[in-house]
Amino acid sequence: MEESNLHNALPDWKNFLGDKNVHFQKDSLANYLNTTLPRSHAPLAVLTPGSVEEIQFVLKIAVKHKIPVYPVSRGKNWGYGNACPAGPGQVVLDLSRMNKIIEVNEELAYAVIEPGVTQSDLEQYLSKNNINLWMDATGAGPDASVLGNTIERGFGHSPLADHFNTSCGYEVVLADGRIFNTGFGHYKNSQVTHIFKAGIGPSLDGLFTQSNLGIVTKIGIWLNPKPEKLMAYAFTIKDDATLLKVVEALRPLRMQGILPSALHIANDLRVISSHMTYPWGRAGGKIPLSKDLREKIVREMTLGSWNALGALYGDRHTTSAAKKSIKRALRGLAFPIFIDETLLKLGQIAVATLNLAGWGKGLDARIRSIEPVFDLLKGKPNKEHLKGVFWRTKRPLSSTDLDIDSDPAIGLMWLSPVIPMTKNGIKTFLSIVEPTFNQFGFDALITLTMLNARTLSSVLSINFDRTNPKECDQAQKCYDTLLTLFLDHGFIPYRAGTQTMGHLADQSQGYWEVVRDLKKALDPEGILAPNRYCPKLPNTK
Amino acid sequence: MEESNLHNALPDWKNFLGDKNVHFQKDSLANYLNTTLPRSHAPLAVLTPGSVEEIQFVLKIAVKHKIPVYPVSRGKNWGYGNACPAGPGQVVLDLSRMNKIIEVNEELAYAVIEPGVTQSDLEQYLSKNNINLWMDATGAGPDASVLGNTIERGFGHSPLADHFNTSCGYEVVLADGRIFNTGFGHYKNSQVTHIFKAGIGPSLDGLFTQSNLGIVTKIGIWLNPKPEKLMAYAFTIKDDATLLKVVEALRPLRMQGILPSALHIANDLRVISSHMTYPWGRAGGKIPLSKDLREKIVREMTLGSWNALGALYGDRHTTSAAKKSIKRALRGLAFPIFIDETLLKLGQIAVATLNLAGWGKGLDARIRSIEPVFDLLKGKPNKEHLKGVFWRTKRPLSSTDLDIDSDPAIGLMWLSPVIPMTKNGIKTFLSIVEPTFNQFGFDALITLTMLNARTLSSVLSINFDRTNPKECDQAQKCYDTLLTLFLDHGFIPYRAGTQTMGHLADQSQGYWEVVRDLKKALDPEGILAPNRYCPKLPNTK
Repeated sequence: MEESNLHNALPDWKNFLGDKNVHFQKDSLANYLNTTLPRSHAPLAVLTPGSVEEIQFVLKIAVKHKIPVYPVSRGKNWGYGNACPAGPGQVVLDLSRMNKIIEVNEELAYAVIEPGVTQSDLEQYLSKNNINLWMDATGAGPDASVLGNTIERGFGHSPLADHFNTSCGYEVVLADGRIFNTGFGHYKNSQVTHIFKAGIGPSLDGLFTQSNLGIVTKIGIWLNPKPEKLMAYAFTIKDDATLLKVVEALRPLRMQGILPSALHIANDLRVISSHMTYPWGRAGGKIPLSKDLREKIVREMTLGSWNALGALYGDRHTTSAAKKSIKRALRGLAFPIFIDETLLKLGQIAVATLNLAGWGKGLDARIRSIEPVFDLLKGKPNKEHLKGVFWRTKRPLSSTDLDIDSDPAIGLMWLSPVIPMTKNGIKTFLSIVEPTFNQFGFDALITLTMLNARTLSSVLSINFDRTNPKECDQAQKCYDTLLTLFLDHGFIPYRAGTQTMGHLADQSQGYWEVVRDLKKALDPEGILAPNRYCPKLPNTK
Repeated sequence: MEESNLHNALPDWKNFLGDKNVHFQKDSLANYLNTTLPRSHAPLAVLTPGSVEEIQFVLKIAVKHKIPVYPVSRGKNWGYGNACPAGPGQVVLDLSRMNKIIEVNEELAYAVIEPGVTQSDLEQYLSKNNINLWMDATGAGPDASVLGNTIERGFGHSPLADHFNTSCGYEVVLADGRIFNTGFGHYKNSQVTHIFKAGIGPSLDGLFTQSNLGIVTKIGIWLNPKPEKLMAYAFTIKDDATLLKVVEALRPLRMQGILPSALHIANDLRVISSHMTYPWGRAGGKIPLSKDLREKIVREMTLGSWNALGALYGDRHTTSAAKKSIKRALRGLAFPIFIDETLLKLGQIAVATLNLAGWGKGLDARIRSIEPVFDLLKGKPNKEHLKGVFWRTKRPLSSTDLDIDSDPAIGLMWLSPVIPMTKNGIKTFLSIVEPTFNQFGFDALITLTMLNARTLSSVLSINFDRTNPKECDQAQKCYDTLLTLFLDHGFIPYRAGTQTMGHLADQSQGYWEVVRDLKKALDPEGILAPNRYCPKLPNTK
């Protein structure tokens, strides 16, 4: 039935969008089958509309023929499903052609963009036009959509790290083709649409994030004014016990705004994975990585069990004061190093000099590994942060060939529980993670981010060989076991992959029932992205 | 018909809630007729449920007899309608008996509270239990509900000034009696309900703020850890031209987090109104205040045209650095003074000494006027900030008798447009405000708050004699004229009074149609607070 519906709809879509924007043959769909998840649903077809009017038309035909459509901005939702729909029998609506940067306001530091605008597009636009603003970039690479990350409530590294909170004035298309603007955007002459989030009356932005209730076709995002001073800081933490103390020591600083941006803490394995793929040879082919070999590599790379990186944005007075506060807080726990642009450049010169003498090897790697991080802090996206994705592949890590989509062996699932920023919270969390990863033959790649002042947002990477069916099964089992344990312990994920979105129902059900009610109100035919953050409930059909 | 419906419902309500919690006779309703607005709707009856179960029962009967109910937390919504419903024929649901402080978590700095908890309740609880946390207090006085202010998206003075953004994990009762929890709260074991806002899936908190879609019966609010150092800063601004420059100079500091909390700027009249009522005698009974007399009083009180007050929360390093940054930014524009607790105490001693010598009069007043402000910054609510409300009354300003509800002459409407934080924005705004106030015989009491880094949230007070019908008319006309001008110029209010909530529709209508759709989905009988932030649309019935 789906097939015949589709065949009825295709001619209309082709007429309106043009043949080249309607993809339904195997070869042209191939690009959309890529995913790093163990399993995924292939789309029935892919449409690439170029405007809101075309989206409206697509929806009209979709409703008429009862064909669900699944919008993606750029489809680079690594670790959570890429461009693949959250269920079978859906037509992907790829919005990448809608890639206009509609406005950049330098005075008030914001941009208005469409779904297809990538991190690289925006960064290039700012630098080419000599605009003194930095975007908040994520580690998802140059090709990821800024809007897509924002409405998935993703996060970056600067004071604007929380993308949902720092975006406003959405344009939304509903399933029936109605267009409306959130916040103040629906008032004709509004001068405050993209600079004040909530508007007046019920605030609806949240409804269209992590949801299937509408298609977001435009958003305002806030940008950072280029600060007088950017100062990165980094330190290693020797063991788990010290990690607990460090978090306790820095929490008050985060609460008081002394740490203005999200501090990221990665475990040894996560850092190692940015510098090499799995050491198959040294490990004798065995997985997961043994304790001995891991310790050896950690020593070779002079890493900590945990490795923290943050940044101070401000002027010379405030960054230097915060530096003192951080040093004081970490006294006896860790030795933070502070790196600003001057030091980075000096370091590069020093390394060049030392290299001549053959002394700079370790230092060279250190400085080089700081560069892309420093770039990211300045809103310059790069592919360096995707390197970890290649961890379990059977080839050496390349700096140039980092195309995730083209490598069928890359298996990756991200699981991102939120943990209270307390000793007990972290202790319990850690007691779950490594044993579960190891039980299924995986290495626990962990990051912990102080996204807000009261919780740690963790991102766990389950890396596996996607060409190995047994590993795929194990990976999914590992994910499911971790998720169950996290829910049992009350560490709820902030985001889900397409494989999980249909299974988020909790015992109380009240919340998801309300989401169902809202879905019925805004999309009675259920045309938009069925399953997407809208779990089936036992008592409904 | 309403009357007969009511008479059918009353016995059921009395049975379940007890006679003393069902008020329908004139004398017991009298308290609920108070409002500072020119006109208001009297409630049919008032119910005071003591629990969620009682709310559910009230709603069941309300649906059965088709009687709309209008929930208020404490009803102290000064300037926006107090406890009065937004339309005729509604029964007020007064939640003030539900005043439990359910939890205070000192480690993670949050509290979980019911609607009836006042600012004073929470502050007392913290201080009595020696909890090292400060709430973000508003100027609305000790008796105002914390939850009520939060779901109206009100704001205070500390780094947690934006109450909506710093609250999470709501418990909501829907019109049909269903209860559910937002954010992560619906996951049974969640440990992160009150510390991470958005949850997973569509984020629904915003739906239940400034809305009539549900009754919020519990929220988590974040508290400030008592900082190592609190440093208030204040400065005067000589004229409008300098105000524009000051805002431009401080905007980058606010964007970079160097000003961690909301800076408030009040015009001369707003400050004067905190120290005296209208000088009827000196003005010869004439309104509005003449330019000459206003200038005289400004000189006597050594005020600026604009008067700014903010605070630095942090440690000794960071507050002292921010002090330098502020001084640098204001060079040539204003002379900020910085006051910490030590200085405040020294000042008090100095004043006492000087008073003995008869020299301390002006200084005394200054220091005394700083005290309540300093208290507020530390989360101690007081009535001082309500003094302006008495501006147009015919009696001298008292420090002790500040009961707004009991004075029928107090007329007050607050109008709160949001303005871009730019020279042009402020210039246009100022060109509208005073002439319009004066045209209708009122004095423009203005505050401008840097609530976020890109906009100014203004609160304009229209003060009038509520016992004078002509002034009531003029006040409403002044409000309506200002509102029209603001909408024309794109300065949309962030909040509305009950007199305006039914008239917020814009030309595009898309937004409010969606709100209507959501209302139908969650409250098909329209039982909850008709008109409340849900305007009638021309094309609907």
